[in-house]
Order: sequence, then C-alpha cells, then structure tokens
Amino acid sequence: MVAVPDQGGRPTLEDVAAYAGVSRSTASRALNEEIYVSPRAREAVLAAARDLGYSPNQAARSLVTKRTGAVALVLSEPESMVLDDPYYLIVMRAAFRALAKLGSQMLVMFVDNRDDIPRTMKFLDGGHVDGVLVFAPHIGDPLATALRLLRVPVVFAGSSITNGKGLYTVDYDNKSGACQAVEYLLSQGRRRIVTVGGPQDQRSARDRLAGWEATLKSARIDPTGMAEVADFTLHGGEMAMRRLLERVPDLDAVFAACDPMAAGALRALKSAGRRVPDDVAVVGFDDNPRLAPTLEPPLTTVHQDPAEQVGEMIRMLLQLLAGEEPAVQRLVLPVSLTTRQSA
Amino acid sequence: MVAVPDQGGRPTLEDVAAYAGVSRSTASRALNEEIYVSPRAREAVLAAARDLGYSPNQAARSLVTKRTGAVALVLSEPESMVLDDPYYLIVMRAAFRALAKLGSQMLVMFVDNRDDIPRTMKFLDGGHVDGVLVFAPHIGDPLATALRLLRVPVVFAGSSITNGKGLYTVDYDNKSGACQAVEYLLSQGRRRIVTVGGPQDQRSARDRLAGWEATLKSARIDPTGMAEVADFTLHGGEMAMRRLLERVPDLDAVFAACDPMAAGALRALKSAGRRVPDDVAVVGFDDNPRLAPTLEPPLTTVHQDPAEQVGEMIRMLLQLLAGEEPAVQRLVLPVSLTTRQSA
Repeated sequence: MVAVPDQGGRPTLEDVAAYAGVSRSTASRALNEEIYVSPRAREAVLAAARDLGYSPNQAARSLVTKRTGAVALVLSEPESMVLDDPYYLIVMRAAFRALAKLGSQMLVMFVDNRDDIPRTMKFLDGGHVDGVLVFAPHIGDPLATALRLLRVPVVFAGSSITNGKGLYTVDYDNKSGACQAVEYLLSQGRRRIVTVGGPQDQRSARDRLAGWEATLKSARIDPTGMAEVADFTLHGGEMAMRRLLERVPDLDAVFAACDPMAAGALRALKSAGRRVPDDVAVVGFDDNPRLAPTLEPPLTTVHQDPAEQVGEMIRMLLQLLAGEEPAVQRLVLPVSLTTRQSA
Repeated sequence: MVAVPDQGGRPTLEDVAAYAGVSRSTASRALNEEIYVSPRAREAVLAAARDLGYSPNQAARSLVTKRTGAVALVLSEPESMVLDDPYYLIVMRAAFRALAKLGSQMLVMFVDNRDDIPRTMKFLDGGHVDGVLVFAPHIGDPLATALRLLRVPVVFAGSSITNGKGLYTVDYDNKSGACQAVEYLLSQGRRRIVTVGGPQDQRSARDRLAGWEATLKSARIDPTGMAEVADFTLHGGEMAMRRLLERVPDLDAVFAACDPMAAGALRALKSAGRRVPDDVAVVGFDDNPRLAPTLEPPLTTVHQDPAEQVGEMIRMLLQLLAGEEPAVQRLVLPVSLTTRQSA
C-alpha cells in the first residue's frame, strides 16, 4: 500500500500516481482522458484524484493531450509482396483491430521503393501521427535508418537493422523455429533433409537457414548442396524445389522457410511423382491459417502469430508514448511446431 | 491563341492562366509548386510567368500551398471482406501507384463498423489529409453520409448513397454488364439461365440482378425462381449454386455477380457432376486477373478494372482540389465481356 500523501500541501500529479500505484505519465494520461491508458489504470487514477482532491493544471493539460489519435503502420516492401503475401494481410487486420480497441486510428502506408521515402518521412514527421509501427524486413532498407530520426516513437517488427539505442523491435525466434523443424524431421527418421531458404537480404530468412544448417551439423549431417534460396513466393518455392530434386534425387525431407514456398515445394514434388509424406516430408514456416491447413496434405509448419507480434509492438509503442522505457529494446517471441499430415 | 495581355499594368495570375491556356487554379498550383498539377501544365504556366514577368504575392501563396500531400483511401466494409476480397487489394495497389506518381501519400483507413466512424471522421477533418477516396458499397452506410460533411473533397466509388449536390462518384455500368453477360449466354443457345446475385444492400449487386432479369424478360423467359443471392464470397456462391441445382435441375447457364461466387458455382457444379461449359455455361463479373484466368475452366466474365476506376476517382479529386467543378458528378464507366472457356 502507498501511504496517503501529506494532506497539508496541495496534492500533486506525483501524489496521485503514487496513490494509484501507477507511473506519473500513466496518471497524466488518465487524467487527461487520453486514449493510451488501460481502463483499470484509468479507474485507479480517477479514484486517486477524487480521494486526494487533486485538480490538474489546465494549461499543462492541453500540452499532454496534443495527440492525433492515429498510429501509422508502415509496410516497406515492393507493393506486390505486401498485397500478395497473406502474412501482411493478417498483420494489417491484427493491427487494425488492436488499435481500434484502444480508440486509435490505424493508417496503413506503403513504401514501395526509395522514391517513396522522403514523402513518407515528411508525413510521419508532420504531426499527423502519434507513433509508427514498421515492417521493413530487408537488411539495409534506407527507410529503417530514416525512421530513427523521427520525433515520434517507432517500433519495428523483426530486426533487419543493427541494434542501437532507441531502436525497439519485436521479433520471432526464427532460428529456434528452424531448429525445431529439422529436429522433428530427424526424430521421424529423415536424413536427407534439404531446405528452400528465403531471400538472404532478410534477417528472418538468414536465421531460418542458419537454424537448419546448425541442426544438421549437430546431427553430423553434411548440409553441402542441400539448400536453395527463393523469394518467399509459391512460384519461387516450386522452382527451388525442382532444382533440389534434380541435385539431390534421394532427398527425403524439405524444410521451407515460409508457407507459400512450402506450397510451391508440394507442387513440385507432386509433379515429380513423390508422395508426401511417404517419400518426402515437408515442413513450412508461418502457420498461416488461410494456407497451411488448406494444403494437400495439410502442412506441418512452425507456428508464429502476426497478431501476437503486432500486439506486442503496440504494447511497446504505448510505453514509449507514455514516456516509459520498455523492459527490453528487443523482444523475441518463442515459436513452436504445429504438426499436420505433411511431415 | 490567347493575346498577350496589356503590358501597361502589372500582369495578374489571370493573365498568366490565360496566356498558358489553363484555369486560374491550375496556374496557381503550378506557380506554388503544388503536387496536383500535370508536368505539361506546370511547364506552360512557368513559361507564361517568365514571358509576362509575373511575380506572385508571397502571402497569398502560403495559403494555397497549405496541403498535407496525403490522400486517404477509406474502405468501409467488415474487415474480413476488405482483406479477403482480391478486389480491394487491387484497389489499394492501383490507388497507391497513382497517388505516388503524383507525389501524394496514400493513407489506407479501414472502417469496420459504426464504432469506427467518429474516430475516422475526426482524423479526416483534422487537417491531416487533402482529400478522401471512399469505397462504401453498402446502401445506408452512415459513414457515407458523415463524409459529406467534411471540409476536404471526397470522391466515392460506386453509388450506394443517394445522389445530391456535392456528391461525386465514379462507378461501373453494372446493369449493362449483366445485360451483356445474359445476352451472350442467350446467343449461345442457353435458355435456362439462373443467377447467383450479390448482397442486395449493395447497389452494384442490385443493378446486376436487375440487368439479368430485364434481359431474360426481353427474351420472353420467365425469371421466377431462377435467382439466389449470396454474399460475394466463394463459399456463398457455392451454397447458392447448390440451392439452384436443386430447384432448377435443368438449368443450362449461370450468371454469377462476381468472380469469387462464380468460382463457388464451378465447385458446386463439379460436385454435382455437371460439365462446364458442356452442360452448364458459367459467366462471372469482375475479370479479376488473379482469379478469372486461373479457374478450371478459365472464366468468361464481365471485365471491369479497379485501377481505371481509382484513376478516374483521383482525377475527379484533383479537379475538386483545384477548385474546379468536374464535368459530371457521377461518372459511369463502360464494361465489356471477356470470353474464356467457361461459356
């Protein structure tokens, strides 16, 4: 219990915060009827203000409440990838729902190429948004660097830019996911385990490839010549699988670094007359609910939930908006394997 | 040719506009380096200003250039429809590309239900955007009414709200498209032509149903009992087709009011052992490039191009931003039939 403050002087914001058991900034937001505060915290603060007879300074108040109520979701990818990849559709949906619940307006902004960056930066820095959520998966994307100069808080999905002070990210444990996939295949007696990796300018794709390689090596299996990389699309996955079938005709399993590429691999295997999982076991990555369970056969895949990732990004953004320092700068979420019929 | 103005007085903005052969507002935008002006018009205006020795009033200038450079694309649909329907993906893509070309920033905003409206309106009226493009296809959508109160110009896709002064829309000729589809089926000797209509709270769906009915009646065919309506989804189309097969077992053609429903109808026909087009001809509506040509068999369908529609909406918005009155308040774009193997 926090002691009731000295009743001699006029209660301050600090007093209200201490009494309610919240931070100063949370107390401020609750008193100013801002949107970024939980109903529970709001109630505690209002009760504390009532109990203590606190009355806020009106001038200070208008400064704190100068929020637009909007949060930008910036997707930096060639537009075809953003709009064709079901992953981003799930992200948009999850972010919209989570922000609407907070009473905040989501603005989706696409960045297709370098030319879009100055315009995007101008808008984001123009006082139109309270904060920014960013998906910029490509290593060296100049947007990621530019965004760090913004005056509003920014939270990144993934970790394609170098860590540094003031850089906040929420990512999945991609390497662990790949390890789990390959360990599972090994436990099923598979030995000739190839991989269709993702584009190596993306950290997630690199980490998944590294996880596959490390796990094979731990099992004293030589990974040489057993990997092909593609572009995270179905077509790319199909082509890569064809090349692998030619080079490693006795392959008995494949780990694909995303579900659409696993779908492409299934297609190539079917064309080649290989039965799944009898001849070749297939494991994907994503567990996209619109894709993985609908494939023939239904796909065993590493489960990650874009809604959970976006939810954590929003939570981190709220802390930054409240002037609080998140517990960690880089939050890594665990993944696990969902087994279906393909492996 | 426009005469060079009297060189006695100081040239005005009107003089520059007349000399360049453009409107006053276009001249103003070109001189103020605004983004909403074509390169050709800009060049003509700058040349005219040079020729005439025109120098603009700096104070007036800052008023005119007070633009954010952003245009909102508002999609008012339950979120599942927006993100699952390939139609909206094409719309987002086309709008992004067209606006980026103009140097304008697209902000996608979803409106999922009534609760989202006050927040959306607050942002749109908060000086954050120059104009608004709206897809609000449901008749009676309260957002559509609210948007008409905005101080920035608004252009609607389709015509689900009553026409009125200050209401600008760009639509396809849905009724004509349905007529063309049914006339084609009649010309192929089909007589038992059923339809899977769309949700009747949408003007486009109503117009397509009306076109089907009117064309059958012109051919002295009784449409009674030959229609089922569904929700514009594949699953809905499949269920509706099943009901039609039960009620009209001798049907020989189906007109589906969108491509996903046509895909569902194909699925139901296949399950029922009917061959397409031998036993039953199928015609869709949309000509979605990701769907229609990939169906088995490839789909004959009414062609409309969301990119063209969005392009015309942006053109209208630019006129409104320039203070010009568009030639028509309601622009109706023609459609035509794309024939493939399904009919």
